[in-house]
Amino acid sequence: MNEFELIARYFTRPTRERAGVGDDCALIDAGDVTLAITTDMLLAGRHFFADADAEALGHKALAVNLSDLAAAGAAPRCFFLSLALPRADEVWLAAFARGLFALADTHGCALLGGDTTRAPELRVDERAVDGPLTISITAIGEVPRTAVRTRAGARAGDDLWVSGTVGDAALALAHRSGEAAALDAADLAVCRARLERPAPRVKLGIRLRKLATAAIDVSDGLLGDLGHILERSQLGARVDWPAVPRSDALRQQPEALQRRCALAGGDDYELLFTAPASARAEVLAAAAGAGVAVTRIGTMTAHAGLEVLDADGALLDTTYRGYDHFGR
Amino acid sequence: MNEFELIARYFTRPTRERAGVGDDCALIDAGDVTLAITTDMLLAGRHFFADADAEALGHKALAVNLSDLAAAGAAPRCFFLSLALPRADEVWLAAFARGLFALADTHGCALLGGDTTRAPELRVDERAVDGPLTISITAIGEVPRTAVRTRAGARAGDDLWVSGTVGDAALALAHRSGEAAALDAADLAVCRARLERPAPRVKLGIRLRKLATAAIDVSDGLLGDLGHILERSQLGARVDWPAVPRSDALRQQPEALQRRCALAGGDDYELLFTAPASARAEVLAAAAGAGVAVTRIGTMTAHAGLEVLDADGALLDTTYRGYDHFGR
Repeated sequence: MNEFELIARYFTRPTRERAGVGDDCALIDAGDVTLAITTDMLLAGRHFFADADAEALGHKALAVNLSDLAAAGAAPRCFFLSLALPRADEVWLAAFARGLFALADTHGCALLGGDTTRAPELRVDERAVDGPLTISITAIGEVPRTAVRTRAGARAGDDLWVSGTVGDAALALAHRSGEAAALDAADLAVCRARLERPAPRVKLGIRLRKLATAAIDVSDGLLGDLGHILERSQLGARVDWPAVPRSDALRQQPEALQRRCALAGGDDYELLFTAPASARAEVLAAAAGAGVAVTRIGTMTAHAGLEVLDADGALLDTTYRGYDHFGR
Repeated sequence: MNEFELIARYFTRPTRERAGVGDDCALIDAGDVTLAITTDMLLAGRHFFADADAEALGHKALAVNLSDLAAAGAAPRCFFLSLALPRADEVWLAAFARGLFALADTHGCALLGGDTTRAPELRVDERAVDGPLTISITAIGEVPRTAVRTRAGARAGDDLWVSGTVGDAALALAHRSGEAAALDAADLAVCRARLERPAPRVKLGIRLRKLATAAIDVSDGLLGDLGHILERSQLGARVDWPAVPRSDALRQQPEALQRRCALAGGDDYELLFTAPASARAEVLAAAAGAGVAVTRIGTMTAHAGLEVLDADGALLDTTYRGYDHFGR
């Protein structure tokens, strides 16, 4: 049973709301607006290294939630923070709060509540070890009722787009584990920044209202997340691998690592979205307005299945899977 | 630095919303309604025993959030669940989901999203131990704009009320740790049910709209939680100890244990609220309509300070503190 099967089996039930379990955000109508709501939990040893920089962690914990709001085209409004701390370390807390609020302020997103708890001690034989630092954030954004966007609206023939570049965060991890070829210091710093301080594409998400027919943020890997759009929109897709935007740092790596990082790496927090071919100029204008590059990487198809094509039109192996917390 | 100081120092900032950090719920206006939002995180080894019954845990994890909505007078609408699981145990998950949805259905509160993660393994010397089961829920309710209620609205001369009985959950814990006098099986079962399956006072919370001037749910202990009302309303209070409602099980215990459980025990999830003396009949009618007993236990005073008086009018020791996650 993988993570998605687990959620489908135990926690997915019909709802009268616009969208619930299975989208980046839940969508509920309240008066004349629709609220987009998302929640993400980060655990030391699972989502970040135990020695991660506290300020970067404050940034990232909120960024991954704002990225979900961006996929829904929602403007961030407020968020809620639950923290389980191994101890009340003031230096750590001050740095974490600095990173958190710097990003929150950038997006006008207010911290309105939360829950702070000491992580439990775990007993191993006679020793006590601190439980992991755990950060859970719920973020709420607003989107006009007429501009609501989910993963389910793609249509056959739509272009498939992605923002920025993908694979850099995965390259930083590959470098850490010794799987990457040499990286110069500047490239490594860029990749680490992508991993540790992802920039949620909030502005782009808002500017794509009524242009993008479906969107998701790339958190588990491009192909895995594309799979969610295919499933919810009941379509297939053809992806042009050479078009997939990669940084110079990633392009210097062996082809196999490039593919793994860009197609299955995850932690990119770019927007993967679909839009009618007739809207290409508007999509590019929206991206320019948001200050983010976007690249057309494929087409949505009426027949099911996901094909990734090489430069010569040959099919690539597409067995890359997104990250599954219970699959490994 | 205790939990409340930590929150005040690092995570409390001004907001333009109706209420933020420091109330049971945040309150944000959306269209013609006000949304009340609350979040609570429960950790194995801290908030519940590692061997806790899964179905009861599903119930309680949602109940503590619905209890916060009840304090705000909000009608539950939806909730979000983040889970960190040591493993994907299907028997456990099915039971947890059963307890969760049984309570959710009772209150028409839909699960709309969440995040499911495998808890990280922690390394101790050469051994790997599972991280703790962690449950974080954010619940959202609605309240008419004209009926918004916080901890801050109490007035001098208001009656102080509490619903149900207090101290039973603490008595169950005291029994477990061998501190309680003998309890017969039926009484013990009642106290355990209070601890494991608290009934959030949602109906009462709604019926007290426009009657209660301030409210809080008793989660950290009656006097500690009353302290939050005093602080936010800038008042004092006089509490009549003999009037504090206790179960027959608790009344059979030594007086010192009764006081500790009822005044500082916590985990009661009763509503502690203030209302004008002129509204006594209406408060009693609201409670009758909600099927919950309420008891008048004191008076709000213009001078600061919290006094607890015995039957003969003597001051009791009121140094009982609420539960503080970083204080022990």
